[in-house]
Amino acid sequence: MTLDRTDARRRDLAHPLREYRARFVAADADLVYLDGNSLGRLTHAARERVAQVVEQEWGERLIRSWGDGWFDAPLRLGDLLAPLIGAAPGQVAFADSTSVNLYKLALAALEHRAPRGTIVTDTLNFPSDVYVLDGAVRQRSGARLVVVPTDHDQVHADEDALLDAIDDDTALVALSHVAFKSGYRYDAARITAAAHEAGALVLWDLSHSVGAVEVALDAWGADLAIGCGYKYLNGGPGAPAFLYVREGLQSRLVPPIQGWFGQRDPFAFELRYEPADGIRRFVAGTPPVLSLLALEPGIELLREAGMATVEATARDLGTYLIDLVDHRLAPLGFRVASPRDPARRGSHVSVAHDDAYRISRALTAANVIPDFRAPDSIRLGIAPLYVGFEDLWIAVERLAAVVERGAHLDVPAERSVVT
Amino acid sequence: MTLDRTDARRRDLAHPLREYRARFVAADADLVYLDGNSLGRLTHAARERVAQVVEQEWGERLIRSWGDGWFDAPLRLGDLLAPLIGAAPGQVAFADSTSVNLYKLALAALEHRAPRGTIVTDTLNFPSDVYVLDGAVRQRSGARLVVVPTDHDQVHADEDALLDAIDDDTALVALSHVAFKSGYRYDAARITAAAHEAGALVLWDLSHSVGAVEVALDAWGADLAIGCGYKYLNGGPGAPAFLYVREGLQSRLVPPIQGWFGQRDPFAFELRYEPADGIRRFVAGTPPVLSLLALEPGIELLREAGMATVEATARDLGTYLIDLVDHRLAPLGFRVASPRDPARRGSHVSVAHDDAYRISRALTAANVIPDFRAPDSIRLGIAPLYVGFEDLWIAVERLAAVVERGAHLDVPAERSVVT
Repeated sequence: MTLDRTDARRRDLAHPLREYRARFVAADADLVYLDGNSLGRLTHAARERVAQVVEQEWGERLIRSWGDGWFDAPLRLGDLLAPLIGAAPGQVAFADSTSVNLYKLALAALEHRAPRGTIVTDTLNFPSDVYVLDGAVRQRSGARLVVVPTDHDQVHADEDALLDAIDDDTALVALSHVAFKSGYRYDAARITAAAHEAGALVLWDLSHSVGAVEVALDAWGADLAIGCGYKYLNGGPGAPAFLYVREGLQSRLVPPIQGWFGQRDPFAFELRYEPADGIRRFVAGTPPVLSLLALEPGIELLREAGMATVEATARDLGTYLIDLVDHRLAPLGFRVASPRDPARRGSHVSVAHDDAYRISRALTAANVIPDFRAPDSIRLGIAPLYVGFEDLWIAVERLAAVVERGAHLDVPAERSVVT
Repeated sequence: MTLDRTDARRRDLAHPLREYRARFVAADADLVYLDGNSLGRLTHAARERVAQVVEQEWGERLIRSWGDGWFDAPLRLGDLLAPLIGAAPGQVAFADSTSVNLYKLALAALEHRAPRGTIVTDTLNFPSDVYVLDGAVRQRSGARLVVVPTDHDQVHADEDALLDAIDDDTALVALSHVAFKSGYRYDAARITAAAHEAGALVLWDLSHSVGAVEVALDAWGADLAIGCGYKYLNGGPGAPAFLYVREGLQSRLVPPIQGWFGQRDPFAFELRYEPADGIRRFVAGTPPVLSLLALEPGIELLREAGMATVEATARDLGTYLIDLVDHRLAPLGFRVASPRDPARRGSHVSVAHDDAYRISRALTAANVIPDFRAPDSIRLGIAPLYVGFEDLWIAVERLAAVVERGAHLDVPAERSVVT
């Protein structure tokens, strides 16, 4: 098999989602965008939807739009998303940010499982989730956060070590379903079952899973989940996050942030807080409507494509990319820093290199956008709705060219604040 | 003096902000919009700004826009807002929602002033603020919320009763600067000084003040403030909220929601949380960029107009509206339910009527948009950038006509969920 451009083009002819590429705005045809795991691309439909929200709903209908659909949007979009994450209706809402949702659910879980006082997570989780969990346990005297060191090879989680850390004081196990750096994908059903066996609740952060891999919250028996809208959902920068609370648990959890959007009858203006029934009680503040409604077309597009096809295509693309890395980049000092087994991998492939930061900057200058994750990972995100085999081929050739001609050596080694 | 339409038009010729009306989108010239205190109108500049953010910044620049300005936007917009609320730079940030900001600051204040454990508020405050404060004290064993009943006449706060409730266990006094229902405006300098005398911190909710009346946080000696972006700031539906923390207090408060946007170096991906210096530590999650940047033109417009002119114009309009109510509506069963002294009133005038709900619905059908606040208030919001004397005259005439011809009697008495 020759891994040349002709071969890549031939593969694209059989790309099951090739028709979807035209649904995205692509002003620069030369750009290879492999950062959909940080910020998904703009769809034509989202551009039109935002203009409609601004011009008609805000500009003309004004306050009447709250009754016309804005007020119901957090739950309506939650139900729209639900099948993409294997959830029956009535269990998902868009609300606030991932951090705020994690905080709310973690504290509610601690309260529900008291006197248990431990939250278990691991070192492959988002640092931002660890910060929030650390802040959450700080609110409960005696509570503590255990961060299990499972990143022995910086790629795969040690699920056994993780399970060993769960004991009869564990109130909550909170993990990222797909790890942000290596892309390791957990055996969520197994971990959920084991945590339940020990009497703990389980929360999955789906930020790197939703819209990327198949997720089956109800089938796993998951209790809680959160995730963001701006990665593979293509919801736009800082799009609101979502949360999932298993139906049987909803009435037994009281969110610590008693926001008016979660009040039973917010427009009665009663001074006493009474949480709404169902998933609405977990929505805190007024949703940022422009950003919220921009999410809708991205969710619809994924529903149309189907997660089974999205995942299958992403696996093929990922395996192809790993082949390219092995053949073309390994001789240049790169190594694959993601699981090779697609069942254990999300939808990005990380490649590690000692000079990864400078290489990632030079690659961006060469019109391929990856992202850098300290200390040594370049993440190549595969969003199969708009990424094809030839894109990956071009990206790898440009990456090789950067290193071969030393283009990265001109980049300052000092990392900028935002990268 | 004859309060007729000719007189109203003559007044509009001298309206100091009459040139600003054209800066707003007004598709329906017949509509009188008196609900800028719930959702401000769309400016042409905001419409253009959102299109630019979507098409260029998201669509073309993609992830690079975080470095181009998105990452700094919460603090940059905070500094842009600062002079409108009497704050020196470096003390204001846009972040999350009003409810989430109140929660963060209230808990941080409780922690800072421990072993004091009481938060004092009053019954004129937003119910939503009371819910959040109630949830916050629930997180601290022994903490409690005192809601002082100061709405003896449903219009004016009893500031003396409020001050009597502050004692040596009070950690925080949290109030709305302008009450959402009657529009009562507190003597913020007096209350802040008295609370400080008793050793308590003071938080002002500026949701009904910002962009409406003059606010002088630094001069008052305020410790904390929050406020929303979607009312008089014209920032769009659910626009992100802002928060203010007095400079000297910033390093001594640790927010309970340890979000990655408040981390010292979020892109280092260290597992240990270390709060950023300054106001950034109080920003929790990723901001909803479309909604955040839509705020900028509205703030700029108010800076251009100047808050002294905005407040002076709103006072004249409010006094005129009260005259109209007295002359035209009092005989029909309405009474003024806002302070008559403009120094004690925000930028809306509430009128009470036993059948207020149905009348407010019939008024909307007559193309005048007020809002209804249970049980008996119709709020008429005066945003002087786009509301003139003739608008108020028309609104009162249509209100009178509704009652005179009994148009409201056809409206079902059952309140809809969203109103």
